[in-house]
Amino acid sequence: MMKLLYPTSLEFDPSRIEGFSVEIYPYDVNKVIPEEHTDADILVTWANSAENLKDAASRLKNLRWIQSLAAGPNDVLNAGFDASKIKITTGSGLHDFTVTEHTLGLLLVAARRFYEMRDYQLQSKWPGHLGGPQPDRPAGAFTTLRDARVLIWGFGNIAKTLTPHLTALGAKVSGVARHPGVRNGIEVYGEDKLPELLPQTDALVMILPGAESTRHALNAERLKLLPKHAWIVNVGRGTSVDEDALADALEQGRIGGAALDVFEVEPLQEGSRLWKAPNLVLSPHAAGGRPQGGEALVADNLRRFVAKQELKNII
Amino acid sequence: MMKLLYPTSLEFDPSRIEGFSVEIYPYDVNKVIPEEHTDADILVTWANSAENLKDAASRLKNLRWIQSLAAGPNDVLNAGFDASKIKITTGSGLHDFTVTEHTLGLLLVAARRFYEMRDYQLQSKWPGHLGGPQPDRPAGAFTTLRDARVLIWGFGNIAKTLTPHLTALGAKVSGVARHPGVRNGIEVYGEDKLPELLPQTDALVMILPGAESTRHALNAERLKLLPKHAWIVNVGRGTSVDEDALADALEQGRIGGAALDVFEVEPLQEGSRLWKAPNLVLSPHAAGGRPQGGEALVADNLRRFVAKQELKNII
Repeated sequence: MMKLLYPTSLEFDPSRIEGFSVEIYPYDVNKVIPEEHTDADILVTWANSAENLKDAASRLKNLRWIQSLAAGPNDVLNAGFDASKIKITTGSGLHDFTVTEHTLGLLLVAARRFYEMRDYQLQSKWPGHLGGPQPDRPAGAFTTLRDARVLIWGFGNIAKTLTPHLTALGAKVSGVARHPGVRNGIEVYGEDKLPELLPQTDALVMILPGAESTRHALNAERLKLLPKHAWIVNVGRGTSVDEDALADALEQGRIGGAALDVFEVEPLQEGSRLWKAPNLVLSPHAAGGRPQGGEALVADNLRRFVAKQELKNII
Repeated sequence: MMKLLYPTSLEFDPSRIEGFSVEIYPYDVNKVIPEEHTDADILVTWANSAENLKDAASRLKNLRWIQSLAAGPNDVLNAGFDASKIKITTGSGLHDFTVTEHTLGLLLVAARRFYEMRDYQLQSKWPGHLGGPQPDRPAGAFTTLRDARVLIWGFGNIAKTLTPHLTALGAKVSGVARHPGVRNGIEVYGEDKLPELLPQTDALVMILPGAESTRHALNAERLKLLPKHAWIVNVGRGTSVDEDALADALEQGRIGGAALDVFEVEPLQEGSRLWKAPNLVLSPHAAGGRPQGGEALVADNLRRFVAKQELKNII
């Protein structure tokens, strides 16, 4: 009989993955796997300590499949598992809603300047310039999602979940991805079109995966193409933004602002200029981190695994 | 020929109200009406100074109709116009979208704790407890709109515009209003049901109009009925909340927090305990203030006025 280990680092209902000829046991992701479970065939991971994963890579000799509930496989890959022998699947899709909600929040914090209101409140000052009669959708400003041109760079599942919320609020959404085309009714362009797209962007939402190919995708040259009022919201990976170039742009007032949920190094380093850069909104990698529907994904992949079918979200 | 005066305090395209036997002139809402225009029949108002309105009330002897672009008629009524002689119509509906967007923003600032992240950022501290792996929709906390029970008190046009955005994010919305019933698919209860509804509310959105009957609608007694984690978002009128009782509840940690766009006195008074109350998010009457579609409303009402039909938004 095969053995599956599931993590106790999140609420996970094992009864929802029963029904296969597989024994199911919980395990603590912050300790090493107990000796009696080193014969496991399948390991479900969530928020495992680096030590736990490294230890598992050396001691779980029978392991044939790792199902991560994280959006990306980076922690599993870094632990030294033999990817030629072990199938690795991610939790892509489990974070679409929660990242959508956070991204929508960051866009509204930017447009409605809730961060600036907070700065005033903390000084017991009324931010009167942000209230009362205001111009409606003035040119050269990002003050609302209505009629705002939102460009989503990295147009995958999260973008598909996010887009209807933005269009319902009146935003004009387009996308950028490796493979251009129309997806869910949204025009998605290739990266070669960025020089034409960036100058016509009010808010650039970045949802790029972490990879060498996306490193510093938003660099000094591309930052210069954005309008002076444009905001950047990054909920993908910190490495996709050149933080020095971004700090320059913010300090020199060359862009409207940036709301970042991810950073090149997390926690953001003590000496970083981003802490105090004007119109920089910091969020501590909080967009995802709450997988939803993990049991259904594991059950579906478990069925496929037993039936020797292709697994979902395989890397 | 009748004469209409429109304000220069907002972008207003007079060509979009042409086509009637009415002369159309702009006027400055911060000065008194020039002598040659004191024969005006119709006055469109937006963000007029109290002096301008008071002066107009005494000098515009031919006035028969005031079309305000504000959501409520309070400033016009306070100026001393003779309501028995002059029809008064409001800009109800022109603010539905913009108040919706701001309210959604405040709800997300509360659920995703962007205000707390800001407090940490300003101290160059990483708010690590708000990021990384988090419990998904834990009981007894308001951390997402998904599955959140949102109660909208004051279920008019703004609530109808707001609700689909909330339900699309997974919230369970119900309403409270003077007249119960099902509106746009949402169950709206009478105020007599508040004792049953408040204890089951994760976020209470208040959109009550300013009136003697709504004064301190949310008082100490009703605050006590809310769960310890519940948030209050007020985008209606400040007078509908007993601010002392709210400050008590916040200071004693008896509710989750409050995001207020309106206050009993605005700007919020220097000595108010609300400035520093824990989990109090201050917004400076910024939800509305940007009427959208004013010309269409004026044109529609102008047609009705000329045709001697009932005006829209008449008070």
